[in-house]
Amino acid sequence: MTLYETLANHLKEHIQQGFFPVGSKLPSVRQLSHEHSVSLSTVQEAYRQLELEGMVEAKPKSGYFVRKIEIRTPLPTTTRPPQRPMEVSQWEEVLNLLLCKSESGFLQLQHAMPDMESSSLKPLLKKLGDLSRHRPDLGLPYGDIRGSEELREQLARLAVASGCLLHPDDLVVTSGCQEALSVCLRAVTQPGDIVAIESPSFYGSMQAIKAANLKTMEIPTHSEDGLSLEALELALDQWPIKAILITPTCNNPMGYSLSEAKKERLYKLAQSYDISIIEDDVYGDISYDFPRPKSIKSFDEDGRVLLCSSFSKSVAPGLRVGWIAPGRYRDKVTHIKYVSSSMCPTLPQIAMADFIKTGGYERHVRRMRLQYQQGRDHFLDAIQTYLPKGTRVSYPKGGFVLWVELNDNIDVAKLAIMGRECKINIAPGMLFSSTGKYRNCMRLNFSDQSIADRENGVRKLAYVINKYSKQYS
Amino acid sequence: MTLYETLANHLKEHIQQGFFPVGSKLPSVRQLSHEHSVSLSTVQEAYRQLELEGMVEAKPKSGYFVRKIEIRTPLPTTTRPPQRPMEVSQWEEVLNLLLCKSESGFLQLQHAMPDMESSSLKPLLKKLGDLSRHRPDLGLPYGDIRGSEELREQLARLAVASGCLLHPDDLVVTSGCQEALSVCLRAVTQPGDIVAIESPSFYGSMQAIKAANLKTMEIPTHSEDGLSLEALELALDQWPIKAILITPTCNNPMGYSLSEAKKERLYKLAQSYDISIIEDDVYGDISYDFPRPKSIKSFDEDGRVLLCSSFSKSVAPGLRVGWIAPGRYRDKVTHIKYVSSSMCPTLPQIAMADFIKTGGYERHVRRMRLQYQQGRDHFLDAIQTYLPKGTRVSYPKGGFVLWVELNDNIDVAKLAIMGRECKINIAPGMLFSSTGKYRNCMRLNFSDQSIADRENGVRKLAYVINKYSKQYS
Ligand SMILES: Cc1ncc(COP(=O)(O)O)c(C=O)c1O
Ligand SMILES: Cc1ncc(COP(=O)(O)O)c(C=O)c1O
Repeated sequence: MTLYETLANHLKEHIQQGFFPVGSKLPSVRQLSHEHSVSLSTVQEAYRQLELEGMVEAKPKSGYFVRKIEIRTPLPTTTRPPQRPMEVSQWEEVLNLLLCKSESGFLQLQHAMPDMESSSLKPLLKKLGDLSRHRPDLGLPYGDIRGSEELREQLARLAVASGCLLHPDDLVVTSGCQEALSVCLRAVTQPGDIVAIESPSFYGSMQAIKAANLKTMEIPTHSEDGLSLEALELALDQWPIKAILITPTCNNPMGYSLSEAKKERLYKLAQSYDISIIEDDVYGDISYDFPRPKSIKSFDEDGRVLLCSSFSKSVAPGLRVGWIAPGRYRDKVTHIKYVSSSMCPTLPQIAMADFIKTGGYERHVRRMRLQYQQGRDHFLDAIQTYLPKGTRVSYPKGGFVLWVELNDNIDVAKLAIMGRECKINIAPGMLFSSTGKYRNCMRLNFSDQSIADRENGVRKLAYVINKYSKQYS
Repeated sequence: MTLYETLANHLKEHIQQGFFPVGSKLPSVRQLSHEHSVSLSTVQEAYRQLELEGMVEAKPKSGYFVRKIEIRTPLPTTTRPPQRPMEVSQWEEVLNLLLCKSESGFLQLQHAMPDMESSSLKPLLKKLGDLSRHRPDLGLPYGDIRGSEELREQLARLAVASGCLLHPDDLVVTSGCQEALSVCLRAVTQPGDIVAIESPSFYGSMQAIKAANLKTMEIPTHSEDGLSLEALELALDQWPIKAILITPTCNNPMGYSLSEAKKERLYKLAQSYDISIIEDDVYGDISYDFPRPKSIKSFDEDGRVLLCSSFSKSVAPGLRVGWIAPGRYRDKVTHIKYVSSSMCPTLPQIAMADFIKTGGYERHVRRMRLQYQQGRDHFLDAIQTYLPKGTRVSYPKGGFVLWVELNDNIDVAKLAIMGRECKINIAPGMLFSSTGKYRNCMRLNFSDQSIADRENGVRKLAYVINKYSKQYS
């Protein structure tokens, strides 16, 4: 941890413990610098961090004050998945979601697409257009099966931010994170094996587990701390689990991030049970924290972590540019990637490499990070205001989706149908369980709606829930 | 069969039986029209067909004559693969081929890339450039998981030429034919199953078989008639084979096409043993015959044929646009395609749809067909002229690769290394066997070299073979 982070954490604890009450003035920059023997700029950095997190506010010419903390909607309850390996079902429901057309006039809260209208994407689009026009020759032949070298170089550079030292040859480019996950699952398991996952989990990984003839072992999660390591350890004691597939940073659907300490403990646990970790980092770069949290991969000593990611959430999914840092499974991963779809299209790779190299990616991500954080705050406000009492909602640390738990007696599958009548689409919670649990939950997206649309959407949702309750009670 | 094809076949038989000797004048158009009660244009079409096939030539103002048939290099011997199911090895050798950089000054005979410099590709490239510049919004979101509808409509239209009546919803778009094959294998088998394949076979399919934990049963082939149905039937009697994966039209590496009658018999055989057929049609559209031969899929009555293809050989592999017509396996195929890489990039799909719709694809393919046929004839001439006695070579009916069988005592793996010293790359035969057979064979490409380069290449090859023979005898 850097100095300013240590200081920020220290202050945060004091605030949380009530040492500095809401509205009170915090020690001056000079005073803290003196007390803690750190530079003025370190203190400023620490305050900036707390400001970003919404804990303090700066008042011009008078210093920093503890912000009023809003009464938050309660968090979802800790999940209680079945305590044994399960086959994955729910394909029909997933397919329905995938085939759901984006009809005009509909509020699309169901998908996990980033905002793609930001002007910070312009340099990338220009490069793509230029390449297509002037260098079509680059896009026509088969390219490097591992991915274009320019891109792998830039990916290795980016990885430093998550604490990973990688060589371009430690990377394999894939068709999005979906292919990355699918390839890694096949690389570390045999048909019939059990894979531990978070519960709830992204449906795409669970369907990949199904297609590879594997079983899931769902591990309980808490909507703020993430996966329960205790439950994982219990499961590892009881079942011959081969790997854990986890989205530890800005989780989909919950939005939590495991603390770095917890990531390290998870890694040690995997080491002691000798299982591999497939780490899905697809939302990692749009964590609201800056610098972004470290990945589990950053603790990897023996190559057992296979990091999977893509630019689908940070830039645009249609690019289909993803990658794997496969650790000691590189040869197997290269083989399976080759048979799965041979090489990936070259032009999007070169365009992304250029976008990163020229700083455009960092600028874009910086902007998105802020936008999504504001989106979250606004969305949570609206949910707090309009959704009925008893509603619980997660508090994302990054990304642009959150998890809503409604009253037990609400069946979101039915609610979703009523929602469609009001031109609003949601993702039913049962997609995020291998066995159709979480029937009273849903995942909602807050990436790209206008403030008005979003507020309107939540109001409509409240109306639909109300209508539902009348109809089914 | 159309009238003119019937007539062409009739004439061909008469020529082959020596009824019309080489150099003799053939009956006039008017005479044949009268004799066979067909229109003048039907006769002209039949003669044009025979001309295309190189059997007759038109002499201005005097009519059609039987062409001198060249003494051909002998055909490769019928292959004799192991008569039991095998695990696939050879990955290291395949990887070496895949990673082989295209260094400048090298003659690249090793890969299976089409000519991509043809001006007939211009409309496609223009469309791709225009779309990237003016409609980047189309390329950014997730698209339809089954592939863009425009493209599937055009694919259904194209399929008519191979005798298939398909609805756009009967198609699933993939990242090239490689993904198509991989998905289909997983859709119709369980780990441990046996898949029958032609011997030799495309290495990519065999590696996909390996990655899906399947075994191959290699079936002997003849370089002109293709797969031995008798051998297949024997194998089906002896082993619990689940599916056959076959490239029956312009086979890679041999270049043969199964006759339509044989395709139908193969289908009936699959029906009677209740196995599915994965038909790789990736070279189908660049068959030298026009109209192109029917696919096995065209005989499919009960949906057991899964047709796989792409534009990698007819247009350009870097587009990564492929597809599956999965018959009764559609739901399973959609599932596995989704988990494998989710949807495919949209812009190349729309550009290809436009290229087909506006006639550009047909024009391009027509031109390529002729170019490759001429390339084959020239390549065979050069091989006949320069390669040592005892060399055998296949006689492709389409595509741009052929199979060369050298003297038994030549190890092409070593020859390939010597070749590299002379700046010439070849694909060693053992890649095309699951177990490293065909050590004295190689696959060569004749798609895009200039006449001079190609002739030079064959001369160099002759030099290398000569050097090899001196060194190792
Ligand atoms: C957690 C997670 N992993 C992977 C993916 C798939 O990403 P891609 O579109 O890059 O295949 C998603 C997309 O929804 C996701 O949310
Ligand atoms: C017979 C055959 N099938 C499939 C493929 C793979 O095609 P694609 O590049 O479309 O994945 C090839 C490419 O070499 C091939 O020769």
